[in-house]
Amino acid sequence: MARLKVAVLISGRGSNLQSLIDACAAKDFPAEIALVISNRAAAQGLARASHAGIATATIDHKAVADRAAFDAALDRAIRASGAGLVCLAGFMRLLTPGFVAAWRDRMINIHPSLLPAFPGLHTHERALAAGCRFAGCTVHFVRAETDTGPIIAQAAVPIRTDDNATSLAARVLEAEHRIYPLALRWVAEGRVRVVGERAAVAGAEAPDGAMINPAG
Amino acid sequence: MARLKVAVLISGRGSNLQSLIDACAAKDFPAEIALVISNRAAAQGLARASHAGIATATIDHKAVADRAAFDAALDRAIRASGAGLVCLAGFMRLLTPGFVAAWRDRMINIHPSLLPAFPGLHTHERALAAGCRFAGCTVHFVRAETDTGPIIAQAAVPIRTDDNATSLAARVLEAEHRIYPLALRWVAEGRVRVVGERAAVAGAEAPDGAMINPAG
Repeated sequence: MARLKVAVLISGRGSNLQSLIDACAAKDFPAEIALVISNRAAAQGLARASHAGIATATIDHKAVADRAAFDAALDRAIRASGAGLVCLAGFMRLLTPGFVAAWRDRMINIHPSLLPAFPGLHTHERALAAGCRFAGCTVHFVRAETDTGPIIAQAAVPIRTDDNATSLAARVLEAEHRIYPLALRWVAEGRVRVVGERAAVAGAEAPDGAMINPAG
Repeated sequence: MARLKVAVLISGRGSNLQSLIDACAAKDFPAEIALVISNRAAAQGLARASHAGIATATIDHKAVADRAAFDAALDRAIRASGAGLVCLAGFMRLLTPGFVAAWRDRMINIHPSLLPAFPGLHTHERALAAGCRFAGCTVHFVRAETDTGPIIAQAAVPIRTDDNATSLAARVLEAEHRIYPLALRWVAEGRVRVVGERAAVAGAEAPDGAMINPAG
């Protein structure tokens, strides 16, 4: 089986990266991580990748002239790795429209909310402030506007009586670690099509009931 | 046990009204419907109420001078019924700020989305167009701005591969029929407090798992 080569872009601790590393460790998983790229040399996720024997690169955004130069370096590194898919995993840099267009429908992201609710930062604080009873997370194809794009999978996560942003973030993160590998599997198996800016997953079954829901 | 008297406001078929009628039929339910008011004489919900032996009133919005006059008539009818709580159940009239203020924290509504996502009309069409994998419904205290106010309960409802707005609406409606009586019970039991524009439900347990989630 030819496995889909993936580049994972991180900026920090890389907990979602770890869930992808763990998934790719299974012999029958249809993707493998060819390269982990960080814009920060101190990102803890780089150590996770090295520990798993995965090539890493740091492209310091402070060392390049501008966003376009950064994204050009990013693009070169990804292509050199042979990756056919980009996974954003806590990558905290805005990408240029040109880069996003170049990887259209070949770049996915995970966001800690039930999009289109709460794009952007501080999602858990905002969900708690709104009195929501459900939070969640979303894996989606990346479009130029932040946290938009065809939705591949979502998980809904109940908000508890005594939740604060930290406890809620921890619970949502568990769901993130379930749905990101799941969505990557579907994409790598070639089962995800984008039609009319909606993602359809052929024959996808959510593994643990209705709280995870693949795109149909 | 003194049961809380409730006025239910409708405009149409009254399926959520029916779920409240059915709940109130139980001897140990802490609320009873004192009056059902419609702004349309032809509303099917009026027949449901009459069939259950509940008093009804029609206040024709075309027969009054303006919104203020309509809401004044509404207020008189509700107070005359002895109701201490107003339940909006598919009531399709905007209420004046004065009326909303008069019934602050004593008026609840059910809305077919996971608020704050998709306030307003055509929620299911909009959720499908956004590629959401979860829809849902919300019971909340009413504030002047449409479909805002402290959230008492929500249910998350998976969106299926082959859903259209009609099939999704039907599935969400089942959830509405579960959470509206549940939220009414909590309010009638005096267990719901509004603090800082968030609703807290003392000791509430969701009856069928995480897909219904009471305010904490």
